[in-house]
Amino acid sequence: MSDHDEATGTRGWGPPYLLYLGAEADDLAIKTARGLAFWRPEWCVGQLRRSDNPLTLGLPDMAPAQARAAGANTMVIGIANVGGMMSEETVADIIVALDAGLNVIAGLHQKLRDNPDIVAAARRNGRTLFDAREANRPIPIGNGRKRPGRRLLTVGTDCSIGKMYTALALERSMRQRGLPADFRATGQTGIFVAGDGIPVDAVIADFVAGAAELISPARNDEGWDLIEGQGSLFHPLYAGVSLGLLHGSQPDALVLCHEPTRRHMRGLPECPLPDLARCLEANLAAARLTNPSVKAVGIALNTSGISPGEALTACQAISDRLGLPCQDPVTMGVETIVDHLLASCAG
Amino acid sequence: MSDHDEATGTRGWGPPYLLYLGAEADDLAIKTARGLAFWRPEWCVGQLRRSDNPLTLGLPDMAPAQARAAGANTMVIGIANVGGMMSEETVADIIVALDAGLNVIAGLHQKLRDNPDIVAAARRNGRTLFDAREANRPIPIGNGRKRPGRRLLTVGTDCSIGKMYTALALERSMRQRGLPADFRATGQTGIFVAGDGIPVDAVIADFVAGAAELISPARNDEGWDLIEGQGSLFHPLYAGVSLGLLHGSQPDALVLCHEPTRRHMRGLPECPLPDLARCLEANLAAARLTNPSVKAVGIALNTSGISPGEALTACQAISDRLGLPCQDPVTMGVETIVDHLLASCAG
Repeated sequence: MSDHDEATGTRGWGPPYLLYLGAEADDLAIKTARGLAFWRPEWCVGQLRRSDNPLTLGLPDMAPAQARAAGANTMVIGIANVGGMMSEETVADIIVALDAGLNVIAGLHQKLRDNPDIVAAARRNGRTLFDAREANRPIPIGNGRKRPGRRLLTVGTDCSIGKMYTALALERSMRQRGLPADFRATGQTGIFVAGDGIPVDAVIADFVAGAAELISPARNDEGWDLIEGQGSLFHPLYAGVSLGLLHGSQPDALVLCHEPTRRHMRGLPECPLPDLARCLEANLAAARLTNPSVKAVGIALNTSGISPGEALTACQAISDRLGLPCQDPVTMGVETIVDHLLASCAG
Repeated sequence: MSDHDEATGTRGWGPPYLLYLGAEADDLAIKTARGLAFWRPEWCVGQLRRSDNPLTLGLPDMAPAQARAAGANTMVIGIANVGGMMSEETVADIIVALDAGLNVIAGLHQKLRDNPDIVAAARRNGRTLFDAREANRPIPIGNGRKRPGRRLLTVGTDCSIGKMYTALALERSMRQRGLPADFRATGQTGIFVAGDGIPVDAVIADFVAGAAELISPARNDEGWDLIEGQGSLFHPLYAGVSLGLLHGSQPDALVLCHEPTRRHMRGLPECPLPDLARCLEANLAAARLTNPSVKAVGIALNTSGISPGEALTACQAISDRLGLPCQDPVTMGVETIVDHLLASCAG
């Protein structure tokens, strides 16, 4: 059922999208759908949710047949519940969507193609299934050689802290300035947004650096790859993924992402977040192994948990302390970070 | 075809072994075979190599049928070439071995069971295939919590530099002193030597720290787990695996392994080896995330490339500079390192 048979581009699936929320009542569980609706609103024709679901993305509610009639190509299973399993109800909804002529893509741990009823429905309708949590292409061992092109990687004090949003905000800002700039996706939501990418945390450990080389190949147009970081060098369970991606990305520039109200590392109540300066220095030290001229160019602060006034104060304090621009990419944009990037990495 | 269906022990395969060298002319590429011949000579009845192959383990050359007649149970594909693929010639040799009645085990990235001709030959002869580079058990996400027991991890300035030899030498020395001590295998050769273990570089990247927790579970007997390290924090392609293993191992003690004639990181001619003090400090800094009291207890120097006199001088110079015992585990043993370990980590 693989439809992703070349190194770039999508096969079979793509926008316009119908976003599936199902019965998920937890805002974190629909973060994939919310990310798509936020970054690619022009691709999203509607949402499908159970009638008693209080969550909404503000899109028209549609059944699959309605969405198909409105031009939808693909239904996105935009949920990420604990355990990553599909309920019976979700399976039934997916089959209805396939029978209505939609392709279906998902990023759950449980794979679409491992469900025989879903596979049968896709076959009888000639539709495409795509599991974004699988590396759908052969991944070579990296070669470690410096390659042409300019790269920025977003790194974080923790998991789920704004690394994808920051990379996408940088792409938007740089394109608005007329610069060649491409977001490079390394996680499921990013892959749906970009239409391409590799879920690096699902790659065999020996191939993470190779996956990073594939995600961000040589480029010669003076443009920038804006690579979505994963995990954190200071998360005891996922630091290996972060380090492999850091080395393989060979970044020229790093932006550090942080959330000031986060009390402990995600999932580990006894494990505090690292100090920003220490976290930045550790990332720079590790990055120098594959790119000795790497620079930190900014801090992206997720201020959704504090007031606008507190956010400005927090950004100013961090900026003063670290000597780098600090902004919330969602509420403040990233213009000062892009200014600093272009000034620091000119020529 | 999986025959490794419990947490410990081997199923179907086992010694006595015929060691397959094939056409590999690079000494590093036959390190699996060499490691088995060195640590378990009593298990190795012969070697199989192409007639023009100048490398030897000093074992009798045997065809599979001869080896079978001499009592061999299993042929070990003891090669580890870059990329981990089997040549057509190797595939043909494996089929001959299966037809001669031998089981076959290998640790290449390319799996025995993914080759239909090999699988067919195993079936028709009722023989076992075992791929040591697959995690033959479900691996949970780690939990990151400190667990009881004492752990030593061998780390290195590069890949293939003596981390397994050092851990096995420490096990031997500590057992000779009557201490409870267990080698914990994390790579293909170690798994063949120990009969158990998890190939951490073949685990999905998100699960490396979880694999380390499984390899070295809680222990309450005052004994030591001697964990085989992988890669190097300074190898641009494999540092992620090294870091995940370092965090998940929660080591109390580190031994740094080095080879003084190595000119560059394995496979990367443009990439120099790190300075020993810098490498040790980077490993200690990263290890403190999950065990703040981690200590360096010694340096293991692979002196096979220099004379015995030079080896003594080199060990003394390193010992003076770093303030730690330094020995070649193969030619000098590890007694001063064990002395220092027991003195440093007492109580």
